[in-house]
Amino acid sequence: MIYLDNSATTRPHKEVMETYMTVSERFFGNASSLHRLGMESEKVLNRARSLMAELLEVEVSSILFTSGGTESNNLAIKGSLMSSFQKGHHVITTACEHASIYQTYKSLEAQGYQVTYLPVDEHGLVSITDLEQAITKETSLVSISHVNNETGSIQPIEKMGELLHDYPKIRFHVDHVQGAGKVPLSIKKSHIDLLTISAHKFHGLKGTAVLYVRPGLHLSPLFHGGEQESGFRGGTENVAWAAAMAKAYKMELAKSRSGVDELKKLRQQLIERIVKSEKLVLNSNSKYGAPHIINLSIPGYKPEVVVQKLAEKEIYVSTQSACSSKSNEPSRVLLAMGKNEELAGSAIRISLSYESSEKEIETFFSTLNDLLPSIRKVVKS
Amino acid sequence: MIYLDNSATTRPHKEVMETYMTVSERFFGNASSLHRLGMESEKVLNRARSLMAELLEVEVSSILFTSGGTESNNLAIKGSLMSSFQKGHHVITTACEHASIYQTYKSLEAQGYQVTYLPVDEHGLVSITDLEQAITKETSLVSISHVNNETGSIQPIEKMGELLHDYPKIRFHVDHVQGAGKVPLSIKKSHIDLLTISAHKFHGLKGTAVLYVRPGLHLSPLFHGGEQESGFRGGTENVAWAAAMAKAYKMELAKSRSGVDELKKLRQQLIERIVKSEKLVLNSNSKYGAPHIINLSIPGYKPEVVVQKLAEKEIYVSTQSACSSKSNEPSRVLLAMGKNEELAGSAIRISLSYESSEKEIETFFSTLNDLLPSIRKVVKS
Repeated sequence: MIYLDNSATTRPHKEVMETYMTVSERFFGNASSLHRLGMESEKVLNRARSLMAELLEVEVSSILFTSGGTESNNLAIKGSLMSSFQKGHHVITTACEHASIYQTYKSLEAQGYQVTYLPVDEHGLVSITDLEQAITKETSLVSISHVNNETGSIQPIEKMGELLHDYPKIRFHVDHVQGAGKVPLSIKKSHIDLLTISAHKFHGLKGTAVLYVRPGLHLSPLFHGGEQESGFRGGTENVAWAAAMAKAYKMELAKSRSGVDELKKLRQQLIERIVKSEKLVLNSNSKYGAPHIINLSIPGYKPEVVVQKLAEKEIYVSTQSACSSKSNEPSRVLLAMGKNEELAGSAIRISLSYESSEKEIETFFSTLNDLLPSIRKVVKS
Repeated sequence: MIYLDNSATTRPHKEVMETYMTVSERFFGNASSLHRLGMESEKVLNRARSLMAELLEVEVSSILFTSGGTESNNLAIKGSLMSSFQKGHHVITTACEHASIYQTYKSLEAQGYQVTYLPVDEHGLVSITDLEQAITKETSLVSISHVNNETGSIQPIEKMGELLHDYPKIRFHVDHVQGAGKVPLSIKKSHIDLLTISAHKFHGLKGTAVLYVRPGLHLSPLFHGGEQESGFRGGTENVAWAAAMAKAYKMELAKSRSGVDELKKLRQQLIERIVKSEKLVLNSNSKYGAPHIINLSIPGYKPEVVVQKLAEKEIYVSTQSACSSKSNEPSRVLLAMGKNEELAGSAIRISLSYESSEKEIETFFSTLNDLLPSIRKVVKS
């Protein structure tokens, strides 16, 4: 199997599964229980929290465990706006966010919030000037993804954070789901208030994520109930998940030390092959971008058919984001970048992991070349 | 180890862990991905959903997977009230709900909803007349737990459902977390619109639960994002969790066939021992109640100290609900039942599983008797 759909989800590492199993069996007690079994579970949870904090270079108290990237983003956004401490009915995001931010902002719009969707340039990037000009006295929140999940564009988060630091009433929320372990980002240097990462994007288990919440910030919980997770998220703590996530992130960061250069080489290889081909069009920026996500179009072909034909040969890539892949509509992200309907409607995403190899990429291209003639082209209307 | 804290959480079954492991490894693909790996994951998810539906005797489309009982309850309540289809600013619950309902209703009150907290009698039961009298033209939601998590009281859900069936604008939400697999409840016969169950209460894994949503009902999602879970819950599906939950529930129901009678015997044994003792006071009803939850008080003793001393002997029971156990306040549930502060402040909950034995209960009592003289009594002020 050649798995090049790591931005949708990754194969969990064996070591991560082992951590999960061991903790589930040995520390099954409810971490909120007063007895020793509960307290032992709580200790394991605290260790996982400390490790995540250490890896993200933040305070232990700032780490909140949630059930996924979508929950973390929703909690960051709605939890901020529903908090009585946060006033102002204007919020800012970009035109090319993942559904978990985009649809949440759409729901805010329906509730009467004024939303600015910042435009992006042909490389998918937001301009700092646009961000600055969008700010009003009513602005209370800015949500931006670090690395775009479809194209790998990297937003200038640090510069944005520097700008927003001058507006203490505005919370800065960053979705770091696609960047984690691949594109370094300093929470502190970027003056980030809220940051999302999700375990299953780096060989952890589905259903575990972290929301970093800058100490001192208040959130209104999405889940009212017990006083778990600093009162920001009721519900029995998932001790084994948390331990498994910390394990996965530690492994990913360790791999990134030598792995990022390797990934960059693979990215270069991919780009050269795409640019050389007459049938393929590169949508990602050829020079600047995350090392593991490359977007290309195959004009005239239905991407879902290409994806399925490749899968029959055990090669896995995707159309757009998995969360939007069933819509069959042209990519909203590519349209926002100024690509035409044909390109936006025929796009394929290749997403690598530290396990990807040069040979896999060669096989991908040769298989694609062999397959294309057998796929019916879309007749233009 | 004698584990009598099964209402806080249970030890996961080996078979459930195995299901989880196998599915995690073999079907790690994103169930929303278009390719074969994704579709295979989706099939496993669909099978888990069908099995849950079969076990609960409801339609497949009504089963929503969530990250826990607290999420399910919050989604049922807030998702109903935020849905534009549901009008009416009066909501009803009882005075002795779990924190995930109680605190959610408190948050509604803060938002301007009118909330009726139905009183309970000395057995923890709500009267149908009180429920009927509480209904106004503005009532849009009734949330009630089937089995009380601290005392094991069983509410007359079927009768309530019959009454509420005459009010089609009111949604009937039942928290079945403590009843699942122990106290039978028919969703259809009870005309239930929304029902919560949580896997880790029956030897499943933490972080998985189901919300039954009667077909045709609309919910406003807590998590905006992808169109997963009928659009009611965005986020990558947890295929392995779902499969593990279905496995656990199937096992629990199978065990309940012969196990419930066994549990009832144990309950009787417990009650007899408590009633006979001069130091102990039975808070649960001696005749009627869930077979696995018994609440007693040890007047004059701090329950958290008793719990810890027992834990030193590897015997695990709890004070109140794990979600509230760190508050150190007298039990809100027992106060609502009319117990005085002394009883409500010295209560212990024993909660059984199908693995509990007569011998364990004997050991519990003899250890408790041995221990009490060594624990300092609280001096009355």
